Amino acid sequence: MPNLRVALAQTNPRLGDFAGNSVEILASVVDAHAAGADIIAFPEMALSGYPIEDLAVRPEFLAVARKAIEHLAADIAEAGAGSVPVIVGFPHGPAEPGSQKNPNPSAIAHNSAAVLLNGKIAGIYNKHHLPNYGVFDEFRNFIPGTDHLLIRVRGIDVAVLICEDIWRDGGACDELAQIRPGLVVVINGSPFEQDKDDVRLPLVARRAVAAGTAFAYLNLVGGQDDLVFDGDSFVVDHAGDVLARAASCATDLLVTDLDLPLAESRTHLPPSNRGAARVTVVDAGSQSEAKTALPTRATPPVAPDERERIWDALVLGLRDYIEKNGFPSVILGLSGGIDSAVCAALAVDAVGPERVFGVSMPSQWSSDHSKSDAADVAERLGIRMTTEPIAGLVAPVESQLELTGLAAENVQARMRGVILMGLSNMDGHLVLTTGNKTEIAVGYSTIYGDSVGGFAPIRDVPKTLVWDLARWRNSQAQLRGENPPIPENSITKPPSAELRPGQVDQDSLPPYDQLDAMLEAYITRRLGRDEVIALGFDAATVDRVIGLVDRAEWKRRQGAIGPKISGMAFGRDRRLPVTFHRS
Amino acid sequence: MPNLRVALAQTNPRLGDFAGNSVEILASVVDAHAAGADIIAFPEMALSGYPIEDLAVRPEFLAVARKAIEHLAADIAEAGAGSVPVIVGFPHGPAEPGSQKNPNPSAIAHNSAAVLLNGKIAGIYNKHHLPNYGVFDEFRNFIPGTDHLLIRVRGIDVAVLICEDIWRDGGACDELAQIRPGLVVVINGSPFEQDKDDVRLPLVARRAVAAGTAFAYLNLVGGQDDLVFDGDSFVVDHAGDVLARAASCATDLLVTDLDLPLAESRTHLPPSNRGAARVTVVDAGSQSEAKTALPTRATPPVAPDERERIWDALVLGLRDYIEKNGFPSVILGLSGGIDSAVCAALAVDAVGPERVFGVSMPSQWSSDHSKSDAADVAERLGIRMTTEPIAGLVAPVESQLELTGLAAENVQARMRGVILMGLSNMDGHLVLTTGNKTEIAVGYSTIYGDSVGGFAPIRDVPKTLVWDLARWRNSQAQLRGENPPIPENSITKPPSAELRPGQVDQDSLPPYDQLDAMLEAYITRRLGRDEVIALGFDAATVDRVIGLVDRAEWKRRQGAIGPKISGMAFGRDRRLPVTFHRS
Repeated sequence: MPNLRVALAQTNPRLGDFAGNSVEILASVVDAHAAGADIIAFPEMALSGYPIEDLAVRPEFLAVARKAIEHLAADIAEAGAGSVPVIVGFPHGPAEPGSQKNPNPSAIAHNSAAVLLNGKIAGIYNKHHLPNYGVFDEFRNFIPGTDHLLIRVRGIDVAVLICEDIWRDGGACDELAQIRPGLVVVINGSPFEQDKDDVRLPLVARRAVAAGTAFAYLNLVGGQDDLVFDGDSFVVDHAGDVLARAASCATDLLVTDLDLPLAESRTHLPPSNRGAARVTVVDAGSQSEAKTALPTRATPPVAPDERERIWDALVLGLRDYIEKNGFPSVILGLSGGIDSAVCAALAVDAVGPERVFGVSMPSQWSSDHSKSDAADVAERLGIRMTTEPIAGLVAPVESQLELTGLAAENVQARMRGVILMGLSNMDGHLVLTTGNKTEIAVGYSTIYGDSVGGFAPIRDVPKTLVWDLARWRNSQAQLRGENPPIPENSITKPPSAELRPGQVDQDSLPPYDQLDAMLEAYITRRLGRDEVIALGFDAATVDRVIGLVDRAEWKRRQGAIGPKISGMAFGRDRRLPVTFHRS
Repeated sequence: MPNLRVALAQTNPRLGDFAGNSVEILASVVDAHAAGADIIAFPEMALSGYPIEDLAVRPEFLAVARKAIEHLAADIAEAGAGSVPVIVGFPHGPAEPGSQKNPNPSAIAHNSAAVLLNGKIAGIYNKHHLPNYGVFDEFRNFIPGTDHLLIRVRGIDVAVLICEDIWRDGGACDELAQIRPGLVVVINGSPFEQDKDDVRLPLVARRAVAAGTAFAYLNLVGGQDDLVFDGDSFVVDHAGDVLARAASCATDLLVTDLDLPLAESRTHLPPSNRGAARVTVVDAGSQSEAKTALPTRATPPVAPDERERIWDALVLGLRDYIEKNGFPSVILGLSGGIDSAVCAALAVDAVGPERVFGVSMPSQWSSDHSKSDAADVAERLGIRMTTEPIAGLVAPVESQLELTGLAAENVQARMRGVILMGLSNMDGHLVLTTGNKTEIAVGYSTIYGDSVGGFAPIRDVPKTLVWDLARWRNSQAQLRGENPPIPENSITKPPSAELRPGQVDQDSLPPYDQLDAMLEAYITRRLGRDEVIALGFDAATVDRVIGLVDRAEWKRRQGAIGPKISGMAFGRDRRLPVTFHRS
């Protein structure tokens, strides 16, 4: 017999917009309360957005957060939902800086979950384990917590953990297994990564089985700079079986009835004299009104195709960068090649064709198929495209400066950058830069040329995956009876920068399937030169590719941000010196 | 009576160049040995360069480091100096990842000091305290150490600490105070910051007095990307008085005779059954040959003027970026304004006039004084200058795209970027971008225009300090009977971007003295809006300035690196989201 109705509100906050985020949270609380929820949870840092980075060390920011969470508690009570405990992630400070437990002497805040009840903050849980690897710097910005919090509702003890707390063996999660709550709610800010779905669910299931306790895993949704939070929240029972699952890459409110053991038969509070972590129990009573049955809800199937999950994450990351920064529209160069075609399709899926502007910028070296493929993309996607030939702009520069060779080729790319930025400056478009991860890895681009732009939709997508995504997106269109958005010719023709007659990428680079495999080994798996060669690649080619990657770091430092989808994105995921001599 | 001769080798490593750095270390060991040193120390990570960032999690990099330190030990013995203990900072791994003490599950290395003796590694000290604030990410990349190391030489116990170990109260340094060695050698990688000299020496003196022990403080020297290590190593006695001091911003070998208590009368090893940190004692014997007296060495006076210290740090940072990355020369636009004049003077001080190329790029709006002041700078500095008018390049873009207003103004700046990059691509010059910290803070620049370049010499120098440095540099020239390098007119005229007729910076920005004071409060001191206003600034102006700073984050992310000289540089010192809504 179900005895607890749990609501997980998978929200998409705007970073720093406490007022707007509070409005969204309140609306979800009202909805969940109307649906008879006994307890309602919001994700990690749902009040502030996430990650807040060094805003966590600004007392002003923390003071605004504190006021906002107090107002939110009062507003929930005023809306008649004050008797339901509401768990909300927020930055909690300022606290005393520089304790021995905190290696960052300037950190003044916890990464916390407040329990709002009866118009007040009834309890606060501080995240114990602070990720300080990959894209995260939480030991820089937060003070670790030490204590536990239980919310006793309808006689059931509900514990709270935050994200990294469930990833560490021998830590907060294992302590909870000793305390034996009836349910653990884990609030997360966990970014999308390829194949991460294969990791989160088994981990939580294993934790549930180990503790003999049901777990509710609640994740943020939305894009924030280079991260895409993909939602995909779920509930597992004490055997680790999935009971309910929320949407991927979209906001959702997941209300689930659970049959949970009562605290009196189960919870084991550690004796206070043992020096163990302190456990606070918030008594939330037992709003015991009879409930109507929940409407049947089909659990959204997890996308069976990884390419769909990646596409959805890329679309969400791009859309939220556009919308959260208030851009009316985007503009991008359409070369007729695969990269710009895929970026245009992503942009249309993100904000619709009327807000996407294409520019064809042919040079004297542009092939006829480039121009016709560019026009074809625009027509298929239903976006406006203008044509700005560059020959008349490039010639004066080349001739005045007497440029030749690569220097002259780069002027073509840079003049395209000048055009896109000029049009952006006139009309307020966000410029999208269409470089893929392979190009960015080996520096196969012109800095201040094709790399100009505020956002790089496929910067973490290797060239071979760009092709895969294009084929998948076209096949999806065909399944829906729509015109495939990406011209077949853009997919099949040999890639070329077209900066000189007859040029193709493969003049300068190894075949893309080999190149991407080498880059995966060197960058994502961090293999050394000898280990990469041992995978079966030609030694001279490996040395050349590694040299290109190492020497392109200065260009990457000046590149636009874009959504991380891999286990190792360029940027804060991979921090390496520019000045570096390989012995 | 002096009983220990200590050599501190203040070296300037190239990051990753184990072979080259080993050669330099060996040469210093041979020199110090010839000078009769009983113990020789090298700075933090002297073998690899510093900071190595995520190279610390590459097993290949650590394996190369291990081989290099073993070779170095053998080479020192072969050179006849094997009997002298040599302390060398290096990255030490791979170790077991992911212990409870290490919050980064992927860290596999310690930040360590090896003691080389008799051709072998005789002992290793692992840094206890890992800075994870400001520009440092050491909790990301390293595993903290727990144990202590004493080197017993001529009957005196010499302990080793690494950098952050002396900055934490209640940590490794206080443990050493209990163990009571005769001398503590602290090896550092401590970057230059304005007024930091006022902090390091008093701290070390306080530690020396607290422990009743002499301290030798040894710092790296040299530029590494955005950091400048300024050397300035010193020795204090047990009363905290300075006995010797090495050069600032230059390599040095500081050999000092000390009168130290013997271990038998002093060292207190903790009983091994107390669970305290383990203490290893390396016995280095007592090379008791009679020594010749050290030649008298004048302690280099600390530069009395902070502007001199800043100038020297900027020159070193720029020189090392040029040399360590192998650029033959630098190129920069000369506008006649103060910023480009100061950058040109820095470049000449860094690599000499024959490797510095100026380009005057006048537009139709450029004043006569701009052109003459630019030529004057070039003449005063003795650098070559070419003139590339931009009118003929800008007009076709403006007219083809029908650009007006700010969009048209930006084309002028972008065309200058195209020129500088074109010349760089032809001849291999490093492009210097001349933006100052004030401009970068408020986004008063054209992205892909005046911001193009690989290195930004004054990116951390506020406009008011740019003027101060110019005046100081001119006065130094006058003291030396040289022609002041910066035209008086460039210092005194009102700053202008000259993108339209009669434009001056103060049309768009508050007076620079007020603006810099506001930025210091908001950025460096991290004050909130209300606190900045409480300093006496106009509320509307503060709101406008804060808005400009927050909205320019996307431009800063794509900006060139340059030397940090302040307590809060843009870049990895100050990590904030691009997408950010101020509630």
